[in-house]
Amino acid sequence: MLATLDLPPELTPVAEALESSLARVAQRFDAQLDSDLDAVADLIAHLAGYRGKMLRPSLVLLFAMAAGDQDLPLEGRVNDAHIAAAAVVEMVHMATLVHDDVLDEAELRRKNPTISHLRGNEAAVILGDYLIAAAYHLCSQIGDHGTSLAIARASMTVCAGELLQLSHREDFQVSAQTYFDIIDRKTGELVGLACELGARHAGADEIRCCKARQFGQLLGRAFQIQDDLLDLLGDEAVVGKTLHRDLDLGKATLPIIRCLESDNAAQRERCLSILQATAGGDADAQAPLREELDRTGAIARARADAVAYVEEAKALLDSFPDSDIRRTLDAVAGSVTSRTL
Amino acid sequence: MLATLDLPPELTPVAEALESSLARVAQRFDAQLDSDLDAVADLIAHLAGYRGKMLRPSLVLLFAMAAGDQDLPLEGRVNDAHIAAAAVVEMVHMATLVHDDVLDEAELRRKNPTISHLRGNEAAVILGDYLIAAAYHLCSQIGDHGTSLAIARASMTVCAGELLQLSHREDFQVSAQTYFDIIDRKTGELVGLACELGARHAGADEIRCCKARQFGQLLGRAFQIQDDLLDLLGDEAVVGKTLHRDLDLGKATLPIIRCLESDNAAQRERCLSILQATAGGDADAQAPLREELDRTGAIARARADAVAYVEEAKALLDSFPDSDIRRTLDAVAGSVTSRTL
Repeated sequence: MLATLDLPPELTPVAEALESSLARVAQRFDAQLDSDLDAVADLIAHLAGYRGKMLRPSLVLLFAMAAGDQDLPLEGRVNDAHIAAAAVVEMVHMATLVHDDVLDEAELRRKNPTISHLRGNEAAVILGDYLIAAAYHLCSQIGDHGTSLAIARASMTVCAGELLQLSHREDFQVSAQTYFDIIDRKTGELVGLACELGARHAGADEIRCCKARQFGQLLGRAFQIQDDLLDLLGDEAVVGKTLHRDLDLGKATLPIIRCLESDNAAQRERCLSILQATAGGDADAQAPLREELDRTGAIARARADAVAYVEEAKALLDSFPDSDIRRTLDAVAGSVTSRTL
Repeated sequence: MLATLDLPPELTPVAEALESSLARVAQRFDAQLDSDLDAVADLIAHLAGYRGKMLRPSLVLLFAMAAGDQDLPLEGRVNDAHIAAAAVVEMVHMATLVHDDVLDEAELRRKNPTISHLRGNEAAVILGDYLIAAAYHLCSQIGDHGTSLAIARASMTVCAGELLQLSHREDFQVSAQTYFDIIDRKTGELVGLACELGARHAGADEIRCCKARQFGQLLGRAFQIQDDLLDLLGDEAVVGKTLHRDLDLGKATLPIIRCLESDNAAQRERCLSILQATAGGDADAQAPLREELDRTGAIARARADAVAYVEEAKALLDSFPDSDIRRTLDAVAGSVTSRTL
């Protein structure tokens, strides 16, 4: 998380409190997955390569600090429930990454070979299931039914979003509304829950819990749009994962949707036939597609959408005390659309 | 469940109470999976073809009746926690079936095409995840952390068993001890938990809860051995699922292990080379393999093992009151090794 943030010096204490709390999360994460079976431990070891920005756990912790007793030192506002909840959301997220790599037939994730590529799809499917079970096991240890229900409900929503996306496979003419419905479920739900759990386990009232959740949902939306842009335009060496998978797999993403929206019928047909060629694996169709995206301003529009959601998210923070925590959350929000990996 | 049991007339009241309670379980199961998204509901509809013997929910309910207040009518001993727990164990089990079919590349399950075959591996992987999430969501509604922890822990154990099995893929010389370690985790754990949850939510003491769990673990063991035998010797038209998958996938099962145990070195080599040929897809090797299995008495030994575990399980029931419920549990246990599907 912190490596990708360019924080001003006055926020260093927050960054340090976040870093030491993230270390506790990582410890809890590892302890929960520990196994005396070599067959399990060997696979778990591969997960280290899946650790990335730790966005979701960071949000749990920052909202714990934002909503907690402001008289306490920063780290003192982070309790055991926060640490467990942060490990749980990361575990659920990682399970979806492991299974996504099976589905997407991806070979690279965070510059490492994916588990499905390295150890086969069977191992990856079962490892993902193991992670989900471990996440629920840890969640049940928090001792709060509301949190268990919320985590399970969010996991159902994530799956529903993925099934909705799958049902629109190779349908490039999907509406923007359906696209947002998909990404809100697939990405926004869990990011929103991470923020909410941070606030809730700090004793925040319903209004702040709700604002925290909405902040996360909007951030998740912006994050997914940026993911779409990176998959389309990114440099594999920088992004560190197999790119152009969305088009190969026939997933309509926001730049594509905006591109098709802004054309007249004849131009739309032309654009669609280019898309079908790229989805069919025709690498020569990449350049004309890029031209269409530029000509219609679709890239710029998708970027502007993402930035607008980040701004909308930031505005929700005004229900929390004006503090360095809030400024850090602002910076995290801003980083979502400026990131290149 | 009941269709495969040949119960004497005096057990009809128990069978009827079980049947009406199973109908409540089915209702709770369906309500939990209900979705307003067509993309989800369409896939859920396919699950009807996965409903089979309902062994695990039946065990929850029968142990509820065996351990509950014996002055209450049979159905009155089954409370809401039992119904939810029964639906949860069946949902977790069904998730493993859906994912197993992806892993095994199976085309048939209970005489129906598998979801992976019908709708693709991606849909099957996500649907399995959806089922697991829905199971935990329902489990969290029971409002008992112990149950949530136990279900999550058992799910982790099931996955660990599958990973252990996978790590021994194409290793026909696996020891009987490792084989039992695999099936105890993969199958025994959840069947044991089903029995325990039935007793526990009926207010049984620790001794009875423990005996119920052991009963289920032994039954699960016998069940898995019978599954192995059916995969090897069964008639696809009767069993209703793709057979001979274990050998094709290089899974050592108990008959194979017993066959290799009882030979001298030269005979073992011969047997191994036949096994490798069948694992390589050589259909002509099936007949010589069958000869080896008969000659070494391996089939008979595996069958005898399964029957012995059933008898051991039945003996554990003596800590429960002598009743028609116990006689029904005896019949259920007996059916595990006599079943042909």
